[in-house]
Parts: sequence; structure tokens; C-alpha cells
Amino acid sequence: MNYRVEKDTLGEINVPEKKLWGAHTQRSLENFRIGPEASMPKEIIESFAIIKKVAARSNHKLGILSTNKKQLIETACDEILAGKLEQHFPLVIWQTGSGTHTNMNCNEVIVNRVKQIVENDFQWENIELHPIDDVNKSQSSNDTFSAAMHIAAYKKLTVSLLPALKELHDTFNKKSEEFSAIVKIGRTHFMDAVPITLGQEFSAYSTQIEKGINALKNTLPDLQELPLGGTAVGTGLNSPAGFDDEIVNEISNETGLPFIKAKNKFALIAGHDAFVQSHSAIKQLAVSLLKIVNDLRVMVSGPRAGISELNIPANEAGSSIMPGKVNPTQIEALSMVCTQVMGNDTTISVANSYGHFQLNVFKPVLIRNFLESATLLADACKSFNKNCLLGITPDTEKIDAHVNNSLMLVTSLTPHIGYDKAAQIAKYAHANKCSLKVAAAELKLVDEKQFDEWVKPGEMTRPNVTVNKNK
Amino acid sequence: MNYRVEKDTLGEINVPEKKLWGAHTQRSLENFRIGPEASMPKEIIESFAIIKKVAARSNHKLGILSTNKKQLIETACDEILAGKLEQHFPLVIWQTGSGTHTNMNCNEVIVNRVKQIVENDFQWENIELHPIDDVNKSQSSNDTFSAAMHIAAYKKLTVSLLPALKELHDTFNKKSEEFSAIVKIGRTHFMDAVPITLGQEFSAYSTQIEKGINALKNTLPDLQELPLGGTAVGTGLNSPAGFDDEIVNEISNETGLPFIKAKNKFALIAGHDAFVQSHSAIKQLAVSLLKIVNDLRVMVSGPRAGISELNIPANEAGSSIMPGKVNPTQIEALSMVCTQVMGNDTTISVANSYGHFQLNVFKPVLIRNFLESATLLADACKSFNKNCLLGITPDTEKIDAHVNNSLMLVTSLTPHIGYDKAAQIAKYAHANKCSLKVAAAELKLVDEKQFDEWVKPGEMTRPNVTVNKNK
Amino acid sequence: MNYRVEKDTLGEINVPEKKLWGAHTQRSLENFRIGPEASMPKEIIESFAIIKKVAARSNHKLGILSTNKKQLIETACDEILAGKLEQHFPLVIWQTGSGTHTNMNCNEVIVNRVKQIVENDFQWENIELHPIDDVNKSQSSNDTFSAAMHIAAYKKLTVSLLPALKELHDTFNKKSEEFSAIVKIGRTHFMDAVPITLGQEFSAYSTQIEKGINALKNTLPDLQELPLGGTAVGTGLNSPAGFDDEIVNEISNETGLPFIKAKNKFALIAGHDAFVQSHSAIKQLAVSLLKIVNDLRVMVSGPRAGISELNIPANEAGSSIMPGKVNPTQIEALSMVCTQVMGNDTTISVANSYGHFQLNVFKPVLIRNFLESATLLADACKSFNKNCLLGITPDTEKIDAHVNNSLMLVTSLTPHIGYDKAAQIAKYAHANKCSLKVAAAELKLVDEKQFDEWVKPGEMTRPNVTVNKNK
Amino acid sequence: MNYRVEKDTLGEINVPEKKLWGAHTQRSLENFRIGPEASMPKEIIESFAIIKKVAARSNHKLGILSTNKKQLIETACDEILAGKLEQHFPLVIWQTGSGTHTNMNCNEVIVNRVKQIVENDFQWENIELHPIDDVNKSQSSNDTFSAAMHIAAYKKLTVSLLPALKELHDTFNKKSEEFSAIVKIGRTHFMDAVPITLGQEFSAYSTQIEKGINALKNTLPDLQELPLGGTAVGTGLNSPAGFDDEIVNEISNETGLPFIKAKNKFALIAGHDAFVQSHSAIKQLAVSLLKIVNDLRVMVSGPRAGISELNIPANEAGSSIMPGKVNPTQIEALSMVCTQVMGNDTTISVANSYGHFQLNVFKPVLIRNFLESATLLADACKSFNKNCLLGITPDTEKIDAHVNNSLMLVTSLTPHIGYDKAAQIAKYAHANKCSLKVAAAELKLVDEKQFDEWVKPGEMTRPNVTVNKNK
Repeated sequence: MNYRVEKDTLGEINVPEKKLWGAHTQRSLENFRIGPEASMPKEIIESFAIIKKVAARSNHKLGILSTNKKQLIETACDEILAGKLEQHFPLVIWQTGSGTHTNMNCNEVIVNRVKQIVENDFQWENIELHPIDDVNKSQSSNDTFSAAMHIAAYKKLTVSLLPALKELHDTFNKKSEEFSAIVKIGRTHFMDAVPITLGQEFSAYSTQIEKGINALKNTLPDLQELPLGGTAVGTGLNSPAGFDDEIVNEISNETGLPFIKAKNKFALIAGHDAFVQSHSAIKQLAVSLLKIVNDLRVMVSGPRAGISELNIPANEAGSSIMPGKVNPTQIEALSMVCTQVMGNDTTISVANSYGHFQLNVFKPVLIRNFLESATLLADACKSFNKNCLLGITPDTEKIDAHVNNSLMLVTSLTPHIGYDKAAQIAKYAHANKCSLKVAAAELKLVDEKQFDEWVKPGEMTRPNVTVNKNK
Repeated sequence: MNYRVEKDTLGEINVPEKKLWGAHTQRSLENFRIGPEASMPKEIIESFAIIKKVAARSNHKLGILSTNKKQLIETACDEILAGKLEQHFPLVIWQTGSGTHTNMNCNEVIVNRVKQIVENDFQWENIELHPIDDVNKSQSSNDTFSAAMHIAAYKKLTVSLLPALKELHDTFNKKSEEFSAIVKIGRTHFMDAVPITLGQEFSAYSTQIEKGINALKNTLPDLQELPLGGTAVGTGLNSPAGFDDEIVNEISNETGLPFIKAKNKFALIAGHDAFVQSHSAIKQLAVSLLKIVNDLRVMVSGPRAGISELNIPANEAGSSIMPGKVNPTQIEALSMVCTQVMGNDTTISVANSYGHFQLNVFKPVLIRNFLESATLLADACKSFNKNCLLGITPDTEKIDAHVNNSLMLVTSLTPHIGYDKAAQIAKYAHANKCSLKVAAAELKLVDEKQFDEWVKPGEMTRPNVTVNKNK
Repeated sequence: MNYRVEKDTLGEINVPEKKLWGAHTQRSLENFRIGPEASMPKEIIESFAIIKKVAARSNHKLGILSTNKKQLIETACDEILAGKLEQHFPLVIWQTGSGTHTNMNCNEVIVNRVKQIVENDFQWENIELHPIDDVNKSQSSNDTFSAAMHIAAYKKLTVSLLPALKELHDTFNKKSEEFSAIVKIGRTHFMDAVPITLGQEFSAYSTQIEKGINALKNTLPDLQELPLGGTAVGTGLNSPAGFDDEIVNEISNETGLPFIKAKNKFALIAGHDAFVQSHSAIKQLAVSLLKIVNDLRVMVSGPRAGISELNIPANEAGSSIMPGKVNPTQIEALSMVCTQVMGNDTTISVANSYGHFQLNVFKPVLIRNFLESATLLADACKSFNKNCLLGITPDTEKIDAHVNNSLMLVTSLTPHIGYDKAAQIAKYAHANKCSLKVAAAELKLVDEKQFDEWVKPGEMTRPNVTVNKNK
Repeated sequence: MNYRVEKDTLGEINVPEKKLWGAHTQRSLENFRIGPEASMPKEIIESFAIIKKVAARSNHKLGILSTNKKQLIETACDEILAGKLEQHFPLVIWQTGSGTHTNMNCNEVIVNRVKQIVENDFQWENIELHPIDDVNKSQSSNDTFSAAMHIAAYKKLTVSLLPALKELHDTFNKKSEEFSAIVKIGRTHFMDAVPITLGQEFSAYSTQIEKGINALKNTLPDLQELPLGGTAVGTGLNSPAGFDDEIVNEISNETGLPFIKAKNKFALIAGHDAFVQSHSAIKQLAVSLLKIVNDLRVMVSGPRAGISELNIPANEAGSSIMPGKVNPTQIEALSMVCTQVMGNDTTISVANSYGHFQLNVFKPVLIRNFLESATLLADACKSFNKNCLLGITPDTEKIDAHVNNSLMLVTSLTPHIGYDKAAQIAKYAHANKCSLKVAAAELKLVDEKQFDEWVKPGEMTRPNVTVNKNK
């Protein structure tokens, strides 16, 4: 490879000739050979391009950046946003904890891209951009990386995760209505219990997701706040008064999203509580979904030695050794994602607890885990919804057998004959492997006619007491 | 000890003569010798007493419980609420996961206490209460234990934790205002950075707590929902129509707290997402507080070889071997509580993920961890606030020395002479252990008068750019 | 209450007249009103009594403590060990992170108890003990609390947890042998799979526990090291040379347990990696047990609409509303304990990561979580073993039906007719709800005689390929 | 793109013409669009290539695979191992939890690559390989994916992580010796304490890492066990007797690593406790390292308003806004990795707890987190060691000032004048901002000569009591 020589306060360094990054980026690249290459999420690079672009506009508007420089920075940023310069962002997450290297990577790429533009177009004669004095003007890594985290997270939630959850919620809702007349056995302690409709069962899932969505939406306002204008420590040093209002307005315009100025910039650079808060809601959803799909996993078990109350679509041959088997693979993928989210929550909590003074230096690992959780959960929900949930159907034959065969129907006798006698009937039926009706008759506690009148599974799925012998 | 014989569907069993519990409780006691005795939180017993009392009222109102029985149940419940029957609740958390044993413990104690009352007062002649048919009427362990969890948690948060946090927040706020004119060095990457006021620094802490409080308040609505009337699986089997509305109204009246009927009872018995959600907010506060007190810990370090920017009250002799030492013991206690809360969050998440079908059977461990976190954090915040934070004072001599001595004041030269020259001055001062002013002069980059005009720490604590050489 | 006045370097303070503690303890009591009273584990108090006793002996032997003082300290310590002075240890876990308050509590109780003894017996005339100069001689809170943690943990594991696990392992082993001839269906992806014996299934559980026990035993050596003789920071300042060897020898003699001198005292006061290591093994066991009992939970499900391959003892009436139901309550209690252990592991990891310099100040929370996990897991294993596992029996009728009915027996045809044709038979049987044998015959792929020869569930539970058509 | 049509039991499907994978892989690709592409770790693909190769050899040796087929499979596997077929492994982690899709991906690629070879070389005339009947012969996804996990993990630890840790340990050891004569202030409760040498301080770090390395090595034996020969559920169905011994031998030969046959194959397919165990040791190291680098972070703080006892190399310009600043960036990167490892530990624990019956279906997420932790920690240790630790130097001027200035030197007076008088001196010096010597003299407690004789920081770094006034 051919190299050019770049220089910074530490001296000279070789940079690959064709790459637009500079000395700072190159040093990071060499000093942090940790994990896979270029692992800084592209959403962060995009957010930085937006910030650099609107910072130039704001600086220009406030009279501290020339029109030419502003236009050139905007052009370079638009190229980044169009995905044309991806190969010039080689850095990893495991760099300095402020994300400074990535901020400098952006500054350097913009400067060097502008240099190319200027060289090729005489209209820009004599214009030279400085990565810090111009591109980073009125900014610091500390406020811009923090803001980039907020922008990337807010977009990911509103554009990707929340819609995916909504879709899932809608399907559960739809299924709940569709299954509202199917009476099945309920299960408590994983044991046979009193009847419930399949629709009621699915309504619980729908409710859990709805509550999770609401919990997640509750966390959006704190993500909407941007600490831009805070520069290094939140004071706004080396920025003009009013820069904070200006740039946040510009970002809202540029993105069409309702970002606002941080109420307290110090707090949003020193800590990332908004991410702890918001990721906790993602974790809540992961926990709920793990419960839900685990139920489904059991209900599709079989085909012959399991519960088999639900059928799922066969999307692939189930096993390399066992022919004819349909495995709940979408459930498994989503389950794995849920455990990943639960672990990421630990990382985010620990990392945020470790901030020191004016700067939390776990920014890259925080945003990495946040975006990973949001992306994986969104993708997995969509995949599960499309490839599994939408195609779920009840096996009504099995469902009917389970509920009609159940000893727990005896519960509906309790208001009529009391708990103790009801228990006696159930025990007799259990011991003699007979039906409840036969047991009740043989014990002379309830005759057949009476039994049929009192024991109706469908009526056991709602409040049903009108008289009560033990008043 | 003397015993009496009790009987249930499994046969006879000895119960200590003086104890009001019955067979079910006795079996649990013998079968679950796990951990310290009587570890079921007293808040749960209290909540159960409330539920049993208002359930009796509701059943009476709906015509399925006699006036006499209602009154007797109310009397017994009032004795529990007055703390008179504590010794009759011996069970542990580590019992059945539905909390059935504790529900039965309540039912049995009420029945046996009523038996005593009846025996001693002829007005109640011939009244016999059945633990299930009467005391548990229209209820199941599944909906009542879940509801008891909600009641206990909601009370703990509103009566204890939120006020303690509010108090802490107020102190941080007050200190922030009190310290607003104290200019000190900021620190990023734990290294000297540009100035900030001590008030600004404390405003970040105040903001973090405020956001945590808001996050916690956001979780109250889901705790306010009670799944009463759902009985075993959420359907309301064996309860009269309208029981759910009736009992939740009664509970709100009885407690003066705004509980409402669960929108979906199935979801609140099968899972406890409301607790995952709410505890996540407690965890967020723990994470924020760990960061905050860790900062304070460093700022009180010394007295001679540390940072020493803050003084804390000396509440005890610091060390058994090192005389004259004042340790940040309140900070340590609060820090330990924060780590406990972070661990409890893992327990709660895992336990809630493990529900199966219509019943989550990790109820006792869920509420144990929830109440512990809320109680410990409330207590620790109060203790820290009273015994440490209120008495914190700045060591202005040390603070002044740190900020005036700092090389980072050079940053305020950047808008005037550019980043590269500013860096040159800082490096020169660092290498020659001289002041920035001397360095600037010796390098002939900024003369003394100019320097004094441009470098004013106090003015570095806000946006300050009006002109800019590199437009 | 009556009070006496005590004094320390901070001044005077009232102490309840009848209590043996002094000023230091009283201040802690007043300054740390956090959580339930007296929550410092009694195992720590006992370990401290041992340390104080042998420290006196060692100091005496090394010529820096008089015989009289040594004897008096020994006497007081023996009273603590005999449980006579429990009411004099009122402190909580949530105190200073070094545990200094508890160390001082011990020093003060010993001094004041000795004062009582001396006052009542003229042989001790004029002897006055100083809590620090005498009782704490050659010690610091830092090395003694750390050592007390090691002693308490090592004892808990070897005396309580490991024997309980061993017992559980033995039962699983025994059951595995007992069930070795019972052929049942295997399940993968929670779906019907190829046969396995119930003994093989239980052998996996046995192996998991065995590996967990070995993992736990691997962690004992690091717990055996004691940093005594390190005093405040590990250097041994203010202790005589040789004190470390002497005291550790004495502790081994006193306890009969193989403690050794820390190879590096600095590391064992500054961090508690031995507890992270050892608790990780406890967590591993919790994770394994959660998997195991979850399997059992499913296998006992029913009685009529579940898997029902195993029966468990009925220890209590299963439900307050549903008569005749036997719930897996022991499984539930153990499961809850497992989730508690998993959360405690997070607490321990975070707390240990937060040490600073020469002293980790999360000692009390670390040992609290460690002892809780060990105690709860030991108790829960014993309870589960006795009240559930020992009484588990197979429901062979259900087991036979499941395996004989299974479509997955088709797998044994694969070596004979190839994967694709085998799959065809299984699909046909599935679609037509017929047996595999009928399907094979109707598809003219395998005749009945051939089928019976090839498909023998019992022979499918071991390697079985001798010829192979597709060589 | 051009496609060819492939077929499996579910019907026809289009596969990109140039890709060697088949129908099973294509379905997975389409059904699991979750997260970044091709995220299945390459270490797993490599391990699979090894397994397929030696399985062919073992099948051949046992007489159930022809020589030709064996040779062709070996050739294709060698190409995978040489990295030539990377583009043909497009699958993600978030697939079926058994990893079946990846097993089938390997089987299909081998078959299709062999087809190419056969078409181009008439010596192989008429040979047709079947992905399951031949390439997967005597195997299942369940035992092979599990074994691939073990192989990949064992290699990663022994080839990468352990050497990196060893290197780090060596440097800490070397530094500890190098710094053995530098007396500095010790710190407890983050406050000034008694002296210690910098060498002693670093010896604690060295010991922590050594103990972590030992803990990690303790976990290797369980990783060495391979469940090959267990096929679908551990029984070995559809494999010849002796296959397990044969294939494990071959793997040891092929890899040069000491793998052994699983003592219980059921346990190693149904659960992955070996990974919980081993990752716990990685987590222990992460926890220790977080503590260690956090200490270093504080000791390099400054340059003028911090502790500044250590200097680190300046690898890059520290900040985009503050010139002249050297940040502990390597410490930050390593710290972030540690928090990631702590989170991954939660994921691994939860995922392993969730196995069901004969098959844990969280295999891909388990190995993903395991390999990520091991890789990141290895890389970060190497980076930190090379770019930071090796270049750390003491700032002896600052170190001397801190220790000599310290009030805690007063501790060495305790054995001579008792705790109370020593405390008096310290308090006087503190209040009057004078030296201890002056304080002692002014209080007439110790004269200057005596003071100098008793207070020698260097002698305070070891046991030092020979006489004691309070015997």
C-alpha cells in the first residue's frame, strides 16, 4: 500500500494514500486493535454527519463561519449521509471512552474530502479547512458523541423497534379476537387448572407487549434531549451564546424528529441515564417476550408426546437427523435475542455507573449495546411475527380433549357443594382414572343431570357466581 | 410445646397450641425450611389483611356473605393490621411460587382468631367460618397474592422511596445554588479539564436524580392496577360479576390510594412486568447514585494526598488503626445498597421471564427483591442525605489552587490563536513546570496583558465566543 | 431506657446501659438506620470472635500481650462463640464498607465484657483492656474483616452447601440407576425426538451437579487464604514479624479447617476475587438446577392435560380454589432461590469491581450476598431432595404411550432406507394420524416384519449402526 | 443475480447460482433476517470443518464410508479450513437454537464443492455425496454444534486469551519488582492511609491476574470434553459403536489439542455448564481488571489537579478541544471491554438456564458471547499492555510529596504512645495545617528526635513491632 505523511501534535504518521482520514484516526487504528474492524455503528457515523452539517450551519448563522466553509462542510457531510464514504470510517468501539477518535475521524474525513473538492474546482480557491478550528467549531467530542448517541437511539426506536413491536402487538390482538371462542384448559404451576379461552390467553400476551411499548415510549422524552452546545464539560466554553438553541433547531429540521435542547447539559455528558432508562424498557420487553414465546414453545410441543395445542408453520426441515419434525425455530431465535438483551442491560448499567466527574467514558460500549438490543429485538420480532405468529393455528381437537378431560372442572362445583366435597370428587376421579361425572355419581354427591348443569367449561371463563350456599 | 391436631385434605397434622395458623400453614412450615424464619415481608401480610377485609365487604355487598361473617372477618383483619398477630405469620419467601401458603396462612389465622372471638362472645353463636369457602370467597391465591404485591409496592414507593429521593434531590438542588459562584476545575477522562462551577457540577447530580424520580413515577400507573376478581387464572371463575369493580373501589377507600381494576387480569397474574418496569427505574437511580457518590468520594479524598475539594462531616472515628481519619462511610453504605439493587434487578428480570402460562410462580422472590431494593434505597438515601450530603462544604482554598494551576485554561486561547498554538503553550508549561502565562510569554505567542484578558476561569463556565479568527 | 456515657475521639455519646457495645458501635447504630436491624450475618460475628481469640494468643506468644489479657480476651470470645452475647451485636450490613464498625463492635463488646468479669473477680485486679491497643493489637479492620469473610465462607461451603449438593447428587445418581431400563421419548427443541432412557435423562442431571460441585471445590483454595497480619493495607504495619504465620496456624487449630497465610495480602484486602470466583460456581449450580427442575416441572405437568411422565409427592393441598391439585412447590422454591443466586452474582461482580486502591469497601455487601446464596441454595437443595426428589416415581403407562406413539422412531429407519424416504413415512403418518408402521406399509417402503425388526425403541438408546446402505 | 433451483422436504427454493450452499441454508437465510449478516463466528465454521473431516475418517475406518467419499469430504473441509470458501457461510447467530442451520450449511457446502470437484475430474466418476446420509453420517446437529462450541472455545482460550493474560501478568510482575523501592502513600476508603511501596501495590494487581488465570485454567478440563458420538440426544443413535472414541482421537490428532470423550454426552448436549463455568472465570478477570485499571486511571489523573503519581505514554492527542492533554485511553478501552464481559456473563447464565430436556437451544447465543468476551479481553489486554502498561513510569516527585506530607504516618506512633495520643497529634496537624512533627512537638507528646526515629515511611511498609508499651 502507498502512504502519505500526516502530522499532528504528536508528530508524523503514515496514512494509507487513498484514505481520507488523518493522523488522529490513524493513531487510533494502530493503538486499538481490539475486536472486529470498523465496529463503530454506522448509525453513529450518520448522526455525526448530521451534527457536523448543522453545526456548520449554526456557526455560519451566528457569524463565526464563512459561507464557503459552511457549504463545503455540508457537501462532505451529505456524501457521508449518502453512504459514499463508508470505507473511510475504520475505527472500533473499543477506543477512547469519549468517542473522541470517531469525532476526529469525522472531522478529518470532512477536511480531506473538502480538500479534494477544492483541488478540483477553482471556485473554492484558497479555502483551507481545519479539522478542529472549523469542522469541530463550537463543539467537543464530549457533547457531539453524546448527542450522536441520542440521535441514533431515538431514530432506532421510533423508526425500527417501536413499529416492529406494534406489528407484533397487532397480531397478538388479532389472534386474541380470532381465538375468543376457543375454550381450553388453563394452567397454573404448569399444572392443569380451570378453563380459559385461547383468546384470553393471547390477550395477556397482547397486554404484556402493549405495556412494554408504553414503557418504552415513556423513555423517549429523555432521549430527545441533546447536550449540543455544552462542548467539553457542559458549560459551552468556546461556543457562542445561543449556539445550543440554534443547532438543536437545525437538527430537528434536518431529521424531522422532535429533538430539544438538554435541560441540563452537564448531566447528559457526565452520564447516560437516558440510555439506562430506555434500555430497561427494551429489557422489560425482552423479559415479557421470553415468557410469551416460552408458553408458545410448550403449546406447540409434540407432535404426539407433547401439549400440541397450537400448530406453527413449517419453514424448514426441522432436523438433520430426524425427518418430519417441525421445530419452533423462530421462537428460538427470538428467545436468544431476549437473553442477549438481558445481558446488554447489565453492561449498560455497569458502564453508566462508572462515569467520573464531567464525562462518562463508556460512551461507545453504551451505544453499541443499546443499538444492538434495539436492532436485534426489532429484527427478531419482525421475523417471528411474519414467519411464525401470523401462521399459528389452534389444534382444536387436542384443545377440546384437554379441557373436557380435566379434573379441574370440579372447581365449578365448589360454590354448590363446598370445597371439601369437590376435592373428594376430584381425588376419586384421579385415583380411579374415571371422569368427574362418573366420580360424582359414584360418590353420590352430584347426579349426572345436576353435573351437566353446573359444569360447563365455557361458562367457567368468566365470573359466574350468583348464589352461594355458604353465605 | 403443646400441640393441637388440625386436618386438611391430606390428613391430620400437629399445630402448636397457641398459634392461630392451621394445617396448610403448618405443612408449609415443615416442608420449606429454607433461609431465615418468617421472611415473607410484613408489607405483604398487611396487604393481605386489607384484601381479606375488603373482600368480605364486597362479598357481603354482592349478597354472598352474611353480615355477621363480614363483621368477624373485618375484626380479625383489623387486628392483623394493628400488628397484634405478627407471631402467627411464620412462613418464608421460599415456599410455593404462587404465595398460596401465605394466602392460606391469612385465611387460617382469620378463621382461628374468629373462632376465639366467637367462643368468648355469645352474640356470635353458631357462626363458623371456613378458610376457603368464606375468607377466600371470590378469591384465589393467584389474584390476591398478585394484588398484595401491587399494594405493597405502590405504598413503599409513594410513602417511602419517592419522598426520600425528593429530599435528596432538594439537597442537591440547594447545594447547587449555594455553590453557584465557586469556580473549580472540570475533569474529563478523570484528567484536568476546563473550568466549571461547583454549582454546575451539583446541578448534574440534581438532574440525574430528578430524571430518575420521573422515570420511577412513570411506572406507578401499572402498579396501581389490581387483578382482583380474576381468581385462579384471570377469568373470575367462582366470583360474582362486578366483584372486581367492587373490591378495587373498597381497597382505594380503605387505603386512600388510587388503585384501579386491571385492564387485563390474565396478564397481571401470569406475569409481573409492572415490577420489572418499576424496579428498572429503581435500578436506574441506583446506577446514577453510584456515579454521583463515587464522584463525591474522590472529591473528599485526602486529606493531604488526594483531591480534597470537599469536606464531609466526621460522624465516627474513621479507622481502628489510623487515627484522625474521616472516611466517606455514608457514601460507602449507599454504594453498597446500589450494587444490591443492581443485583436484585437481575433476579427480578430472570424470575419474571420464567412465568408459565396463566401463573408466574416466582411471586415471593419478585416482591422480596422489589421491597428490599425500595426499602434499602430509601433508607440509604435518607441516611446519606442527613449524615453526609447536608454537611458537605467546599474546600475553597484547594479548589482555587486546582483551577488556577491548571493547564487546561489554555483552551480559552483556542478561539484567539487556534488549536495548534494553544497546544504548544500547554506543552511548554507542562514540560517546564511553569504557568501558562509564563509559557505564553516565553514562546512569544501571547503577552501577559492579553493573557489576563483572555484567560478568566469564571468566564470559561459559559458560552463565550464572540469573535473568531478562523471564520 | 437507661444510658451510660461513652467517649471516643469524637466526644461523648449515650449507650444503653445494659449493652456491652461502646461509642463506635453506638455511632454506627445511629448513623446507619438502613434496612432491617442487626443484619450483619452471625457467621461474621463468630468468625470475628475466633480471630480476636487467636490474635490474643498470637500476640501473647510473640511477647506483646500479657498472659492475663490473653486469658480475658479468650474468655469473652468463647462467650460470643457460645452465642451468649448475641444481643450486643446490633449493627447492619449497610455501614462502612470496610466493616470497621463491626470490628469495633467486637472490640468493644470484648472490652466491656472483660470489664464485667474483672469487676466481679479480684484475681484480675487492675487489668484494663483497650479495644484498639489490646483487642485489636496487630490487626486492622481491613485484614480482620477480610479474613472473617474467608472463614465464614469456607465454613458455609464445606459444612453446609457442599454436603447438601452431595446429597442431591447421590439421589439423582440413585434415581438414574433405578430408572435405567425405562425407555421414554427424548425431546429436542421441546419437540418429540428419539428415545432415551429415563436413567440416561437423570444421569445428565447428576453429571451437571457433579460438575458444579467440582467447579465449587476448585474455588476452595483461594478461600483458604487469610490476609491476617496485613493490618491496614497489607504491609503488616504495627504488627510483629511472624504474626501472620502464627495467627493463621492458630486459626487452623481452633477451627480444624485448613486455612493458610495469604500469598499476597495486598490483593486480598484490596479485592475479593476469591468471592467472585467461588460465587460464580454457586451461580453455575443455580443455573444448572434451574434447568433441571424446569425439566422436572414439565414432566410432572398434568394430571390430564400435561406431559405427566413423573409423579411427585403431595406435600400439601395444591391450591386454595382448585381441589385435588398437586403442585411442584419444592421445584418452585428451589427455582426462586436459583434466580436469587443469579442476581446476587451480579451484585458481587459489580461490588468487587469497585474496589479502590488498597481497600475494597464493599466487604459487607459482598459477604452478605455470598452467605445468602450459599445458605439458601443449601437449604433449598435439602428441602427439594427430601420433600420431592426422593419421592419421584415414573408414570410408566404414560411414558410407554409417549414413546410408542412417537413419529420419531422413524429415525431408526434412516440407516436402512435413507433420510428422504424416512421423512416421507413420518409425514404420511402425521398427515393421516396413523402409526408409522401403517404408513410405511401403505407407502410400500417397509413391510411390517421388516419394520418390527428395525424399529425397537430400546435399541435406539445406544449406538446401533452396523451396516449402512449408503457407504 | 442468477439462481439455481434446490429442493428439500419442503419443496423447491432458489439459491444464488454461484453459492455452494443448498436449500436448508437458503431457507434459514430468508427466514432469519436478524442482525448483521453472516454473524455466525468463523471459529465455529472452522470447528465444523474439522469435525466433518474427522467424522469422514472415523466413518471410513469403521467401515461405513467409502474411501472415495472420505477423500472428497477431506478435500472440501481442507478448503474451508484454508479460508477459501468463506463467502458460502452466510448464516446468522439468530437462527435455530441448536445451530442446525449452520451444520446443514457445512454439509451442503461440502456436498456442492465436491460436486464441482467430481465434475472436473473423471477419476471420481459417479460419486454422489448426500449432505445427511454421507457428510452428516453418525452425527447430528446437536452433538456436532456442541462439540464445535467446545473446540472453538478451548482454542480461543489457550491460543489467544491465556497468552495475552500471561503477558499482562508478566508486565505487572516486572513493574512490581522495578517499583519495589518506591515508598508511596497507601489509600483506604480512597483516603490517605499508611505507606506502601509502589511495588507492593503492583504485586496485588499481579496476584489478582494470576488468580484469575488459575481460575480460568481450572475450567479447561470441562471444555476438553466433546459429546461427539452422542448424535441427537446423547444416546448415539444411528452411529456405530466406538465412533465416539474414534472421532475424538482424530480431533486431538488433527488439532494437536487434548480433547477427550464426554463422560456424559447427555449433559453436554442438554446444557452448556462448561461455558457458564469458563465464562465466569473470564468475568472474574474482567472484574479484577476493572478494579486495577480504575486505580491506574486515578493514579495518572492530573496533570496538575489530580493524583499524578504515575505517567502513561501519550499515544494520541487527548482531546479535540483541549490541547496538551494525555488521556488514559487504553484504560478506557479495556474498561469498556470489562463491562461487556460482565453483561455477556448475564446472557450466558440466563441462556444456559433455559435449556429444555435433551437439548439446550441457546447454543449460538452462548458461543457468540463466549467467543466475543474471550476475543475482546485478549485483544484489549494486549493493547493495554503494549500501549500503556509497559510505558508506565512513576512520578517520584509527586509520590514523595504525598507520602511525606501525610498525616497517616502518625500510625507508626501508635505502638509507642497509644492510639489516643496519636490521634491527638494527627488532629492537631490537620487543624493547624502543620506537619506531624511540629504537631507532636507543640503538643509535647513526642520530641523531634524521637519522631524521626519512630516515623520512617519506608519502615512502615512491613511488620515493625518489636516492643509494645501496652503489653
